[in-house]
Amino acid sequence: MNYLKLSKTELLNLKADLEEKYSSYKEKGLKLNMSRGKPSPKQLDLSNALLTEDMGSYYAADGTDARNYGVLEGLPETRQFFADTLGLKTENIIVGGNASLNLEYDALIRCWVFGSRGEKPWGQLPKVKFICLTPGYDRHFGMLQDLGIEMISLELKSDGPDMDKIEEIVKDDSSVKGIFCVPLYSNPTGVCYSEENVRRLAAMPTAAEDFKIFWDNAYGIHHLYDEGEKLADIFKLCEEYGTEDRVYYFFSTSKITHPGSGISCIAASSDMIKEIKAHMTYQTIGHDKINQLRILHFFEKNGGIFEQMKRQASILRPKFEMVVKAFEKGFTDSGILTWESPKGGYFVSVNTLEGCAKATAVLCKEAGLTLTGAGATYPYGKDPKDANIRIAPSYPETDELETAVEVFCVCVKLAAVNKLLENK
Amino acid sequence: MNYLKLSKTELLNLKADLEEKYSSYKEKGLKLNMSRGKPSPKQLDLSNALLTEDMGSYYAADGTDARNYGVLEGLPETRQFFADTLGLKTENIIVGGNASLNLEYDALIRCWVFGSRGEKPWGQLPKVKFICLTPGYDRHFGMLQDLGIEMISLELKSDGPDMDKIEEIVKDDSSVKGIFCVPLYSNPTGVCYSEENVRRLAAMPTAAEDFKIFWDNAYGIHHLYDEGEKLADIFKLCEEYGTEDRVYYFFSTSKITHPGSGISCIAASSDMIKEIKAHMTYQTIGHDKINQLRILHFFEKNGGIFEQMKRQASILRPKFEMVVKAFEKGFTDSGILTWESPKGGYFVSVNTLEGCAKATAVLCKEAGLTLTGAGATYPYGKDPKDANIRIAPSYPETDELETAVEVFCVCVKLAAVNKLLENK
Repeated sequence: MNYLKLSKTELLNLKADLEEKYSSYKEKGLKLNMSRGKPSPKQLDLSNALLTEDMGSYYAADGTDARNYGVLEGLPETRQFFADTLGLKTENIIVGGNASLNLEYDALIRCWVFGSRGEKPWGQLPKVKFICLTPGYDRHFGMLQDLGIEMISLELKSDGPDMDKIEEIVKDDSSVKGIFCVPLYSNPTGVCYSEENVRRLAAMPTAAEDFKIFWDNAYGIHHLYDEGEKLADIFKLCEEYGTEDRVYYFFSTSKITHPGSGISCIAASSDMIKEIKAHMTYQTIGHDKINQLRILHFFEKNGGIFEQMKRQASILRPKFEMVVKAFEKGFTDSGILTWESPKGGYFVSVNTLEGCAKATAVLCKEAGLTLTGAGATYPYGKDPKDANIRIAPSYPETDELETAVEVFCVCVKLAAVNKLLENK
Repeated sequence: MNYLKLSKTELLNLKADLEEKYSSYKEKGLKLNMSRGKPSPKQLDLSNALLTEDMGSYYAADGTDARNYGVLEGLPETRQFFADTLGLKTENIIVGGNASLNLEYDALIRCWVFGSRGEKPWGQLPKVKFICLTPGYDRHFGMLQDLGIEMISLELKSDGPDMDKIEEIVKDDSSVKGIFCVPLYSNPTGVCYSEENVRRLAAMPTAAEDFKIFWDNAYGIHHLYDEGEKLADIFKLCEEYGTEDRVYYFFSTSKITHPGSGISCIAASSDMIKEIKAHMTYQTIGHDKINQLRILHFFEKNGGIFEQMKRQASILRPKFEMVVKAFEKGFTDSGILTWESPKGGYFVSVNTLEGCAKATAVLCKEAGLTLTGAGATYPYGKDPKDANIRIAPSYPETDELETAVEVFCVCVKLAAVNKLLENK
């Protein structure tokens, strides 16, 4: 059924029908949440050995007592673990605390306060701009906004950034200092960057000597299917063009073991690792090494990190498929909702009829279903089309998710019908 | 024996004697370290249950699943734990990661980047100055130096800062933005601030509206004896004068459980907590809540934090007493070494004959005994008298410590004799 072709009478009948369904949900006093990319309790249970079992030796392989102070860059085996997992070099990795977000923020702040590669600190410039791919991750936009960095919105395409436009923007304007990327299973669209686009990011000439790519590979191994998408090695490509200093690469175990208590890393060129450590040495004596060993011990005892990801996928996959199937059933050829069918990551991104995202979210909220605030996936919280909604299907259990999706579908339809009736 | 009264011949004889002893130590190929305030393995063993035992429930008292994302300011019971331990208010506490140093750095950076209390960010001012009490903590001086903040050295007196001088400095010069204080068992002198001095810090008018006291109460409960020194409540005193926004208060469990994997806190006025959180929300989703529960569970099972500190003291006390006794034996009325007899904290601060600290440290180094670099306890690493050395007796085991102190005493004497011979 194509909603756009319905007559006023048909729409009014539909509206009455939808409102009845909506009321019945409202009466149930539901408390459902699809707002954040949080693992479900069953996913968290996969790592409970971290909480109950002896963590093994507290000595690192080189004899370091992990209980005590020290080792700014993290234990050698933890750095190697991240290197092996991501196909990077051990010497280019610094291990962080429980959040790669914190490493991203600190990297941004160091550029702001101290500058990079001998260039002027960004905080001393009259204007600093970043390219923001949309829809994107609200927390990236948030930290830029807090610093007063001007955000240039560019729509993310199905194979990554619009490189023609980006090359044009960065080549002459030295105030454009960087870009945030979630290159694999992008938040929220699930887009994976093509090798060609990664190459162009590595190759492009930038007016700013200190241009930075914040490569937030948060979902780097978070495949829903055995045949995961492949991501090109940005450092290798950058080396071809002598641009390896432009990349800050981030990863964490947050959605692999427990989000509250994982470990994270930043990877960068050898020169940038030196630059980072030169300031980081005043910030901390070193992150939690016990947790580094504890998590390595856990993976060792449980078949490694990739086996863990298969266990995660087996819980997540049916949830994603349920959401997509519900959309196929309710909205194929409807004209009022489009969606992505991601092969990894944590989100299903949808676009409602223009001008209906906020209204849909309000209807959901009033029926007890919390979504990420409409607009949150755009800089300054402003979706120019008021269409994008980020669905996070991971947290609710299957029966709850089923109800949540039903409620969501009714709300999308009701908001669309209301909108369509405005013009009749 | 007063070295200053010895004749040239006496000094030369002494020198020959000392050099013989020194050579015998050198031949032993010692590897001793009194450089950093690190707990010894035996102290760390006190908390090994953290590594081997089931951590208990991973639900916070309010039902929060600590394994998942969230709770920016830390779990309510962890905030209350810090409040109870320090005599502060729960609502004024934010829990951090494994290092209070990191919280100090971040607080400084927020003032630098965003400013405080609506004043201009410090990074946008032509000149920023801090008062640095000497001898002091090298990592405090380091972070100020990295930002290019001008450090005004002021000697710490036996009951705290020289308040006459400080009041004079801060009252007219609005570029003086702050002071770092270790108010109890100060690093390295072990000085405790008198109530009168804390009151004057709270009361003093400052030209800078955004003047900050970085109150690093790192040794707040680290008493060596049952009758611990008392520290006045700076927040309570500040409330009398309406200056509570000037205090950032820091504490951690680093030297209570395991330094590498403890928990930390920052305390501040309600308005400053709001200000901190407004920016911190872009830096992290929240620190490691599992570790917060794990450490609380450990204290619960082991008689509480104050019992733990008694166990720590029973290991540390004999070491401190051994050092002080060796100094009493070797240097009473010698004229070449003065020292403090601290009642808590982690250091014994000594002053050699002027111009002998570096020479002493070099001699120690060559005999296999590592000390904190001479000068490190002063801004820019420059001790104007080249006299202060920070001794950290905590890490070596008793027999090692005995040798280390013997080596140290011989090196102090040899450096002094060499110095005295220069003028004969």
